[in-house]
Amino acid sequence: MNQEWVGYVAATLTTLAFVPQALKTLKSRDTRSISLGMYAVFTVGIAFWFAYGLVLGSWPMILSNAITFVLSATNLGLKIKHGDRAPTL
Amino acid sequence: MNQEWVGYVAATLTTLAFVPQALKTLKSRDTRSISLGMYAVFTVGIAFWFAYGLVLGSWPMILSNAITFVLSATNLGLKIKHGDRAPTL
Repeated sequence: MNQEWVGYVAATLTTLAFVPQALKTLKSRDTRSISLGMYAVFTVGIAFWFAYGLVLGSWPMILSNAITFVLSATNLGLKIKHGDRAPTL
Repeated sequence: MNQEWVGYVAATLTTLAFVPQALKTLKSRDTRSISLGMYAVFTVGIAFWFAYGLVLGSWPMILSNAITFVLSATNLGLKIKHGDRAPTL
């Protein structure tokens, strides 16, 4: 039985998960409680998952990690931009 | 050539990434800029990655997603506990 669907569900969920965080931050300009270390390490890690997807020839991993990389890098960039400052709304 | 190491590097990085976020939140009790939607969707997604690791027989995926699930659920629990309130230090 082809069980690739499990990977596609996993990939869809962990990719889409970063959208609400990016939207929340873009709206609030508040990144005080977000960890810089988390997004720095996570973004590099996703680049390695992308490479491992190539090794396994797993399309769910390749496609989703390409998108997750962009979203995670966006959250990292917003954290670097806004830092620990209170938002000036 | 055995390229499982790529998966182990990826797994180590994206797993460890959630440690600084958990420590930061435990210390500050501030989750205002963290997205509840992100951790809710991400935690469920990690459960599916764990299952997909079983499908592929990939030990880096199985082991790391078990640990990532615990760390992500910890961050989710802290967000649920502290919500959007300012920390009372």
